[in-house]
Amino acid sequence: MAGDSLGKLFRITNWGESHGPAIGCVVEGCPAGLELSKADIQPYLDRRRPGQSKLVTQRKESDQIQILSGIVEGKTTGTPISLMIENTNQRSSDYDEMANLFRPSHADFTYQKKYGIRDVAGGGRSSARITASNVAAGAIAQKILKAQNIEILAWVESVGDIKANCQFDQVTDEAIESNDVRCPDSDAAKQMEAKILEVRKAGDTIGGVIRCQIRNIPVGLGEPVFDKLEADLAKAMLSINASKGFEIGSGYAGTQMQGSQHNDIFYNESGTTKTQTNHSGGIQGGISNGMPIDFTVAFKPVATIMQKQKTVDIDGKSAEIQGKGRHDPCVLPRAVPIVQAMAALVICDHWLLNKTISSL
Amino acid sequence: MAGDSLGKLFRITNWGESHGPAIGCVVEGCPAGLELSKADIQPYLDRRRPGQSKLVTQRKESDQIQILSGIVEGKTTGTPISLMIENTNQRSSDYDEMANLFRPSHADFTYQKKYGIRDVAGGGRSSARITASNVAAGAIAQKILKAQNIEILAWVESVGDIKANCQFDQVTDEAIESNDVRCPDSDAAKQMEAKILEVRKAGDTIGGVIRCQIRNIPVGLGEPVFDKLEADLAKAMLSINASKGFEIGSGYAGTQMQGSQHNDIFYNESGTTKTQTNHSGGIQGGISNGMPIDFTVAFKPVATIMQKQKTVDIDGKSAEIQGKGRHDPCVLPRAVPIVQAMAALVICDHWLLNKTISSL
Amino acid sequence: MAGDSLGKLFRITNWGESHGPAIGCVVEGCPAGLELSKADIQPYLDRRRPGQSKLVTQRKESDQIQILSGIVEGKTTGTPISLMIENTNQRSSDYDEMANLFRPSHADFTYQKKYGIRDVAGGGRSSARITASNVAAGAIAQKILKAQNIEILAWVESVGDIKANCQFDQVTDEAIESNDVRCPDSDAAKQMEAKILEVRKAGDTIGGVIRCQIRNIPVGLGEPVFDKLEADLAKAMLSINASKGFEIGSGYAGTQMQGSQHNDIFYNESGTTKTQTNHSGGIQGGISNGMPIDFTVAFKPVATIMQKQKTVDIDGKSAEIQGKGRHDPCVLPRAVPIVQAMAALVICDHWLLNKTISSL
Amino acid sequence: MAGDSLGKLFRITNWGESHGPAIGCVVEGCPAGLELSKADIQPYLDRRRPGQSKLVTQRKESDQIQILSGIVEGKTTGTPISLMIENTNQRSSDYDEMANLFRPSHADFTYQKKYGIRDVAGGGRSSARITASNVAAGAIAQKILKAQNIEILAWVESVGDIKANCQFDQVTDEAIESNDVRCPDSDAAKQMEAKILEVRKAGDTIGGVIRCQIRNIPVGLGEPVFDKLEADLAKAMLSINASKGFEIGSGYAGTQMQGSQHNDIFYNESGTTKTQTNHSGGIQGGISNGMPIDFTVAFKPVATIMQKQKTVDIDGKSAEIQGKGRHDPCVLPRAVPIVQAMAALVICDHWLLNKTISSL
Repeated sequence: MAGDSLGKLFRITNWGESHGPAIGCVVEGCPAGLELSKADIQPYLDRRRPGQSKLVTQRKESDQIQILSGIVEGKTTGTPISLMIENTNQRSSDYDEMANLFRPSHADFTYQKKYGIRDVAGGGRSSARITASNVAAGAIAQKILKAQNIEILAWVESVGDIKANCQFDQVTDEAIESNDVRCPDSDAAKQMEAKILEVRKAGDTIGGVIRCQIRNIPVGLGEPVFDKLEADLAKAMLSINASKGFEIGSGYAGTQMQGSQHNDIFYNESGTTKTQTNHSGGIQGGISNGMPIDFTVAFKPVATIMQKQKTVDIDGKSAEIQGKGRHDPCVLPRAVPIVQAMAALVICDHWLLNKTISSL
Repeated sequence: MAGDSLGKLFRITNWGESHGPAIGCVVEGCPAGLELSKADIQPYLDRRRPGQSKLVTQRKESDQIQILSGIVEGKTTGTPISLMIENTNQRSSDYDEMANLFRPSHADFTYQKKYGIRDVAGGGRSSARITASNVAAGAIAQKILKAQNIEILAWVESVGDIKANCQFDQVTDEAIESNDVRCPDSDAAKQMEAKILEVRKAGDTIGGVIRCQIRNIPVGLGEPVFDKLEADLAKAMLSINASKGFEIGSGYAGTQMQGSQHNDIFYNESGTTKTQTNHSGGIQGGISNGMPIDFTVAFKPVATIMQKQKTVDIDGKSAEIQGKGRHDPCVLPRAVPIVQAMAALVICDHWLLNKTISSL
Repeated sequence: MAGDSLGKLFRITNWGESHGPAIGCVVEGCPAGLELSKADIQPYLDRRRPGQSKLVTQRKESDQIQILSGIVEGKTTGTPISLMIENTNQRSSDYDEMANLFRPSHADFTYQKKYGIRDVAGGGRSSARITASNVAAGAIAQKILKAQNIEILAWVESVGDIKANCQFDQVTDEAIESNDVRCPDSDAAKQMEAKILEVRKAGDTIGGVIRCQIRNIPVGLGEPVFDKLEADLAKAMLSINASKGFEIGSGYAGTQMQGSQHNDIFYNESGTTKTQTNHSGGIQGGISNGMPIDFTVAFKPVATIMQKQKTVDIDGKSAEIQGKGRHDPCVLPRAVPIVQAMAALVICDHWLLNKTISSL
Repeated sequence: MAGDSLGKLFRITNWGESHGPAIGCVVEGCPAGLELSKADIQPYLDRRRPGQSKLVTQRKESDQIQILSGIVEGKTTGTPISLMIENTNQRSSDYDEMANLFRPSHADFTYQKKYGIRDVAGGGRSSARITASNVAAGAIAQKILKAQNIEILAWVESVGDIKANCQFDQVTDEAIESNDVRCPDSDAAKQMEAKILEVRKAGDTIGGVIRCQIRNIPVGLGEPVFDKLEADLAKAMLSINASKGFEIGSGYAGTQMQGSQHNDIFYNESGTTKTQTNHSGGIQGGISNGMPIDFTVAFKPVATIMQKQKTVDIDGKSAEIQGKGRHDPCVLPRAVPIVQAMAALVICDHWLLNKTISSL
């Protein structure tokens, strides 16, 4: 109820604060008999980890995964998998003067008003650091889905007004990982990198868009009314820190189209029903139709900037504040594995749910 | 689990098909002692009803609400409120030839593949008709919220490439309802109306964007991690038929801004902490900050067009199909009360959830 | 949340009051493709119906089931099945003088205090009448389970101090239904019947015990920790009006045994692992072991008696009250199909849940 | 879904295996601002801890609680509280020969069949050891409830056929803790102790009954239909390892009473409505009526005995098995704090739920 869980059958319950002893999550619903070790999870965390390149925060968390339950002799037992990441590099003193100030466009004000108390250091539970647990859980989900041949790719589609130009269906993980931005269009990636370094130098930050494609998804995932597949994806994406928008298929551009252009015409290819276009983004009536799922997520610029800003303090008095600590000039490169993970959690849950439909 | 319920404390369970005997929903969690009668609900249904203007489908459902439980002597008792709307104007024969064909960009194909059976008439459960139940439940939520002075407005922001130009904070229900399009900018409304009639004449359809504003919302609604207020709103909006996107606050435009521009600076006005801008859209860290909540929802053009289209039949063979029956050339005018209702369901649920936080 | 739903995948949401326009429920999670009509449900309602014999209340509700959704051409579609039973024989005037009095051992006092308002007529939502909806939903669950060869029997094991003496594994539906008490031991049944008529004559009521056996249940239903199969059965049984206790397997008698007597020794019979005794009641570690599930439910005597009793009124003043209306001298005969239905709902839900376990 | 969570608003998610690195749980819904430290939790664990007296297993787990999140400067923040207990005294070799054998009346067989794999050492997740996490979470719930003056007592009511004889309303924690059995009747306690030592000597085990009383509970906790307070208590109690039965109020004895004896007559005392008897056990219509809640839980004899027993192995072949390791001859003394904890979890959840009812 308190909003720390996601999913019904494949469910993650997330806990922890940025500068507490540890963060972690409990993963329920993982089928028994899956080979699983830290080595399946750590690479995903390394992609989200701070300090991995010059484009991101220089905070040096090693983010080492620990598996505390649910595995015996290298295989899952069907019982909850408890994952933990110790917090090792807290510099809480960076936050001392912020204890009584509300950072603009952060969650300081709303947490303080909602709870009457908040964990100031590192933003406590409002920190994007807690998404590391989701990335770890998502690694398990992706292992399950890969065994079904389902593949989830995500990449940076734009930074500020610089857009990638790439052939949607031909993007590869290699192309994505070939540069620090995680944009498969190498020309755009260079411009994005320059832009990010430019805003960092100015003590500023910049937003952007991530695109996600899910390939080889079977027909039939998603539930008709409220738990439509795109609805659950939208929720998962809007739960990521700093995300401000979600589009599936044609999205906002599709609002300017007419039905005769927008409709995805069915045809048959070697016994499989496909559509000529994919404005639906792989989902029709809330249920996957077998075409690739295609969505984007909008991320605002990081709120912490190295410039002086006006604000109010806990008593409502005017004050000034300036970012300290080590922060990202642009969340996009590190948000790529988060989007992937959240997508994997949703798809894995619906894949399990769908097993209960055709039961007779 | 099956995806027919929305909400935790204030919860709706939706049932029914377009051409079955009736549609309806069960509303749980409505506080006891609320004065409630059909007259509180019917006006909302009348705004969603087919046949209300020349811009919408001419299907003539009267959509009369029935309240089957949860009320005694005109007041709610705290027990489930069962709402029912009989289906009176089914013309199932319109769908005869569609039984073996998959309409492009409809849910025929995915339902058939998922369940191995589907209710062909009127699209069965995939029909937007079933949102009438949500509108009825939303009317109850809005009555509860109004008693807290919380007000939810929604209007058509664009149809195709025609955009409304209106002072966000000064939109009124009267201005919205002053024309059939439900756009508070009367000049834009005229152009939108002309556009809709034009596409209808061509047997075509057109998409658009709805904007929603929630005023006087208290600080503190929303949960930190997965059940962020914007995440639950996104899910609710993406569950509406034909919706393809969601933005909160600055949305996709915000991805092109820098932090120094985007940050909402706090200030104090007569003892209340406000922000100078509202790029956050009234939510920070998943929790309402007291500023108006501001989001948009993208709707694709209606899939049913009065033109011949290619498709495949249930055996995968090529076929042709042409829309029959009475359909909307543009869902936007009728989607306004649906967006409002879904927003009300989410806010009401979070308002109840928030009562359990500061419990000591 | 409000407690009107039971189950996760196979879920029922119950609504309605004793003397309102109707009662009913929404059944979610029924697999698609099941042949289903009123004729599958009505016989179960007829067994719970008032007025069916001289042992039960003479209230004359016909309890005709209506199916409002989820079926097309005689088969389930996988979408919610909305069931409704109209209330036809309300004599609310029977309750006029009770509006300001709290009937002893009824829910009048607690509802009034919890909600500040209550539906007086017929006890409103606290009436056992609302279990009719559960019986209807349970009929669907039983149809699903029978297709898996799972069979649920229930019978009256005792009335007051009169106990049935029957060979547990040889009880048949025919023997149960051969008398009005629903006790398969015909000698005991006669004594029970005499006892019930005797207490009725005295304006009094009597309690008893129902026993339930679930045969041919597959190994593996139930979840390890909190959602143990016996835990979910216990909850379902204690949710039935007037129930005061639950035992699985050896139950309270088992507390006096030693481990060496109580342990169920495994042996192998034609390739199937069985146990020599069944003190476990068919469940070990929360999971069915393939032996018959065996539990009992204790029912207190009906609270409404035709004798004068002291009580207090809504203002806390002393008062007298005497039962009016038509009531059961003993709920046991009518509770048999309710116990069966609740068991079926739980087992069906766990049967679906178990489909998601061995997924790799 | 997978059954590792209990509660809706105050919710615990339990993880871990007996001989894994650690066990623990995530506690959600704890109100913000509560002073909380290890010292609030450790004493409850010490009462459940193995090795605490000669009546229980001599396994030497120190069961030290760690709090990993949700607290800042000694107060709860409203975010999830992650609790962990490291497993320090595993002697997994005790279980080597059991890897291919199914211990009678244990969960070995059902886990193996359900999951196709199981954690043999210490019974893995089926071990009663995992209730330690529930006890820790229950300590938090009890701290919250005590601030509301709600008090939960539990004690051993019987061991085998030896029954306590005590004045229900006058039992004190001191009397309960005055002996190793945790029975407030010191004469009975001595006999029980002798009985337990006798069965231990014989390599055998014995069952018993625990009684629980909840004092000063406000009127109004519990939900009408499925989530009745007694139904949720029953579920929580039947989820405890080795429990086989649950009674509320008059329980099975009440089935032999007539309504005129059983009904609890209301009267008024200093402005408070009470009942002369409490056969209802403090709950009417699923909702607390302000009288003490009174229930019992039946526990079977521990399945592990130090005697040879027949069984089958993983291939279905006949085999012999004899208990090794360190086990309890009687779970009752250590089950007392578990029953208390489970009761506290249920009551705390319903106390929060009830805050959302009278909301207008």
